[in-house]
Amino acid sequence: MEVTENSVGAIDGPTNPMVTPLLTDLYQFTMAYAYWKAGKHQERAVFDLYFRKNPFGGEYTVFAGLEECIRFIANFRLTEDEINFIRESLPGSCEDGFFDYLRGIDCSDVELYAIPEGSVVFPKIPLLRVEGPVAVVQLLETPFVNLINYASLVSTNAARHRNVAGKSKTLLEFGLRRAQGPDGGLSASKYCYIGGFDATSNVAAGKLFGIPLRGTHSHAFVSSYMSLDEIIDKSLSRKDGSSTCEDFVSLVQTWLNKIQWSSSLHGIFGETNQSELAAFISYALAFPDSFLALVDTYDVMRSGIPNFCAVALALQDLGYKAVGIRLDSGDLAYLSCEARKFFCSIEKEFAVPEFGKMAITASNDLNEETIDALNKQGHEVDAFGIGTYLVTCYAQAALGVVFKLVDINNQPRIKLSEDVSKVSIPCKKRSYRLYGKEGYPLVDIMTGENEPSPKVGERILCRHPFQESKRAYVVPQQVEELLRCYWPGNSDKRRETLPTLRDIRERCIQQLEQMRPDHMRRLNPTPYKVSVSAKLYDFIHFLWLNEAPVGELQ
Amino acid sequence: MEVTENSVGAIDGPTNPMVTPLLTDLYQFTMAYAYWKAGKHQERAVFDLYFRKNPFGGEYTVFAGLEECIRFIANFRLTEDEINFIRESLPGSCEDGFFDYLRGIDCSDVELYAIPEGSVVFPKIPLLRVEGPVAVVQLLETPFVNLINYASLVSTNAARHRNVAGKSKTLLEFGLRRAQGPDGGLSASKYCYIGGFDATSNVAAGKLFGIPLRGTHSHAFVSSYMSLDEIIDKSLSRKDGSSTCEDFVSLVQTWLNKIQWSSSLHGIFGETNQSELAAFISYALAFPDSFLALVDTYDVMRSGIPNFCAVALALQDLGYKAVGIRLDSGDLAYLSCEARKFFCSIEKEFAVPEFGKMAITASNDLNEETIDALNKQGHEVDAFGIGTYLVTCYAQAALGVVFKLVDINNQPRIKLSEDVSKVSIPCKKRSYRLYGKEGYPLVDIMTGENEPSPKVGERILCRHPFQESKRAYVVPQQVEELLRCYWPGNSDKRRETLPTLRDIRERCIQQLEQMRPDHMRRLNPTPYKVSVSAKLYDFIHFLWLNEAPVGELQ
Repeated sequence: MEVTENSVGAIDGPTNPMVTPLLTDLYQFTMAYAYWKAGKHQERAVFDLYFRKNPFGGEYTVFAGLEECIRFIANFRLTEDEINFIRESLPGSCEDGFFDYLRGIDCSDVELYAIPEGSVVFPKIPLLRVEGPVAVVQLLETPFVNLINYASLVSTNAARHRNVAGKSKTLLEFGLRRAQGPDGGLSASKYCYIGGFDATSNVAAGKLFGIPLRGTHSHAFVSSYMSLDEIIDKSLSRKDGSSTCEDFVSLVQTWLNKIQWSSSLHGIFGETNQSELAAFISYALAFPDSFLALVDTYDVMRSGIPNFCAVALALQDLGYKAVGIRLDSGDLAYLSCEARKFFCSIEKEFAVPEFGKMAITASNDLNEETIDALNKQGHEVDAFGIGTYLVTCYAQAALGVVFKLVDINNQPRIKLSEDVSKVSIPCKKRSYRLYGKEGYPLVDIMTGENEPSPKVGERILCRHPFQESKRAYVVPQQVEELLRCYWPGNSDKRRETLPTLRDIRERCIQQLEQMRPDHMRRLNPTPYKVSVSAKLYDFIHFLWLNEAPVGELQ
Repeated sequence: MEVTENSVGAIDGPTNPMVTPLLTDLYQFTMAYAYWKAGKHQERAVFDLYFRKNPFGGEYTVFAGLEECIRFIANFRLTEDEINFIRESLPGSCEDGFFDYLRGIDCSDVELYAIPEGSVVFPKIPLLRVEGPVAVVQLLETPFVNLINYASLVSTNAARHRNVAGKSKTLLEFGLRRAQGPDGGLSASKYCYIGGFDATSNVAAGKLFGIPLRGTHSHAFVSSYMSLDEIIDKSLSRKDGSSTCEDFVSLVQTWLNKIQWSSSLHGIFGETNQSELAAFISYALAFPDSFLALVDTYDVMRSGIPNFCAVALALQDLGYKAVGIRLDSGDLAYLSCEARKFFCSIEKEFAVPEFGKMAITASNDLNEETIDALNKQGHEVDAFGIGTYLVTCYAQAALGVVFKLVDINNQPRIKLSEDVSKVSIPCKKRSYRLYGKEGYPLVDIMTGENEPSPKVGERILCRHPFQESKRAYVVPQQVEELLRCYWPGNSDKRRETLPTLRDIRERCIQQLEQMRPDHMRRLNPTPYKVSVSAKLYDFIHFLWLNEAPVGELQ
């Protein structure tokens, strides 16, 4: 389901059919009623969706979830059944006319501008600017925030894991069983892929989104075998089909014996676990061309690795190439290095080219910190399977995305707060990313909708929206307008087509690479600057003074 | 949709239609193929689902998610489309017979025993015991773990919030916008209700599960108003319909004036914010009988509270009773006390009975700690609206539920680990809760399936499963078998009917009340004891020695 727009340009509904107009807070409907009752429901309002702080102690965020929002508004309609439920949920005194009104609403009169999905984004800059009848746009708040919050959070988490693991490693998302509910799992698979993961174990996500699938076997598989006697059909034909080995089990045992008595490996292990060996052989007979074994059920170095190598060498005799091992417990730095040494010894001792390069996958409660620690210790892991900490965003389980009214009836609105970081930036705005000489983004700037856009080569004053003394001149080498039209409503704007998941992922990877490295580092990253134009700055502070009550000291 | 079993006893599918047999890890299918290829797929296996550690630093957990698991297995069938996708995802060498096999499987041969949903449960004790053909039961692992992990985690989190807030407070789940995806939101609403919350803001959850709905209005509603001129229709009829007040706005203004110049309140505030006042009046005109106002958009004490009181007093004149206020920022302890004082002064000054009891709802980034801190400081909050920290389980975003093979072909299996806490308890087992004289549960005990059950009044040796020296004799006053049959498969066991959501919630509240208080306290709670019978203890350690490789010191 890569393409969500069908041949006539219609857009599919949200991936999860439970995302309906009722997936919202009750107060959106009570407010809609109050607007309607006051005759105010058609007033044209502009809302900004943004977040206030980058997650995970970092200085960047990946924006994700946009496609689901577009799917949602493209199909926004209340069914009769839903309207009846709303009627039951509101006070009996609510007038019928309101329900007739609800029956008629859709998003044909809503305009939605957004930063492209997969972009690197920063606090305060609107990710979405949504304009339309106030009652309708309010109904979109909760679903939009829900759809973007977790999506952006987990994409960012994935990008951070990629950042610490490095480009050369394979990253596998293994989080389905620990995710917050079924669709936490599906969303995690999708958005971790956007953030730079290579594959998932989640079959449903593979089917829905076309994400590459990966998997091996589990401890239960290994311990379900008791002995070699359980293997009934011991035959395996050579890969080229030229002949058949009638007793693959004996072939493996011969190799195990050879390893056991080899000069370089002698004494590392005694007798290996036979139920484990039986499980490995059985798995190899089923998947001779993609044999990958979980080696830590009994003892990695004394049983798992030798058993794996015996099976891999027997497969090699028949023309197959084993894939590698998975480590799921213990000291992953130490075990991966020991395993690598073992593989290299085998390559040398038995002259098996490439055997030393056998893939090592690690997968036990990994997160940014543990991968960083592994890097520092030195390890031989080729692929990381990451679950719990990735998909639940354990280090910070929520992103504070908000949706604030900035203009109604062409009147700019501000939301004040004792906490300056919670004051909203009023006005229908545009935003731009200004790039410096070296090609790095330097600063994002917000302007009023009708201000002239910043020009390349022009000296522009960028002001901190709230701190008077913080300002800087910038002469941009490139200016990128951030908000694009994804839903034109009744306007004649061209609608951006929705990119495929792969394109979104590509954009994300590219954008992350384009950032100045000091914004991206794990420890003490440099904050990226977010600013407003001088004109917008003045207007914010005029409005602020206008709205704030004057205190009386007593 | 309270009742999930229809008249002919059929069970509906999972609430979320995305919960299909493909919502699983790829390796469950590769293992199924390997079992099938080895002719082992029909071997009868027993798996235990349990967790290893109580969450949130506590000593108890609420078990939830069972109903969804039963709905899942009751409808477990692979569609042709799904089988085709699995075929594409597995190596091309996989034989056709396997896909024919997949086409035929369902859960008619699976037996599922479980502790009733909503029970208080403890580490290591199986929540589910699932028995059936090994290949089929493996396919259930990931969906079961996914469906139970978050459900139990968030129910427990809700129960902990209830515990700290106390019985007399109203607890509202307001988490939809911060939840991990749409169904993170829906599940949160459902399972927080089970854990003891009173209502949710999530309309879809209200419709799906029959959970009471609650909501007020937002800052955007307040700031969408500019002035009193926006109120066109100013009339409001008396509650009893006897007459109509033609200018409710003037009535409110008169009251505001009276409050402003009242002797007891004089000087607390100057001019209140008029756009806020307009919003309140407008909301009151729409909901005269359920007026609840968000009072912190501009300034709680100088604007929000006086404005609210003026509207509430005007409503009172017409026979209506306002509900109360919501505080969403600032020092909630201080502001709630000041608001209460203000309400009480009004009650006294204007002789309005009960005005002092106006409900105060608080809702800003609340969690267990902040509620505890509020309790210590003293506050006047009647209801807590809790979002982010509750639904994302911010303090611990995952519960480590696992699914381990304990028996196959009547051969008990153990999973070893360097980490003793990760060693599984082998054998098909039964478990019991033993109660003491005072009616409190004393200890949970696991026995082999065929051991005689503990009897009331009998002296029973309860052993720690792994620590030799930890054991105790118990003479139970009551013995409760924990596992009940929720899916009998082909056996002739009676299937427990699925309780309604309200019954599950009732059970949860009751079970929590029944626990000895020292297990439940927030700081340094006493661990509840979990044990095995002497016979099972001996068997575990026999098997352990049998499976563990003997090291060789070098």
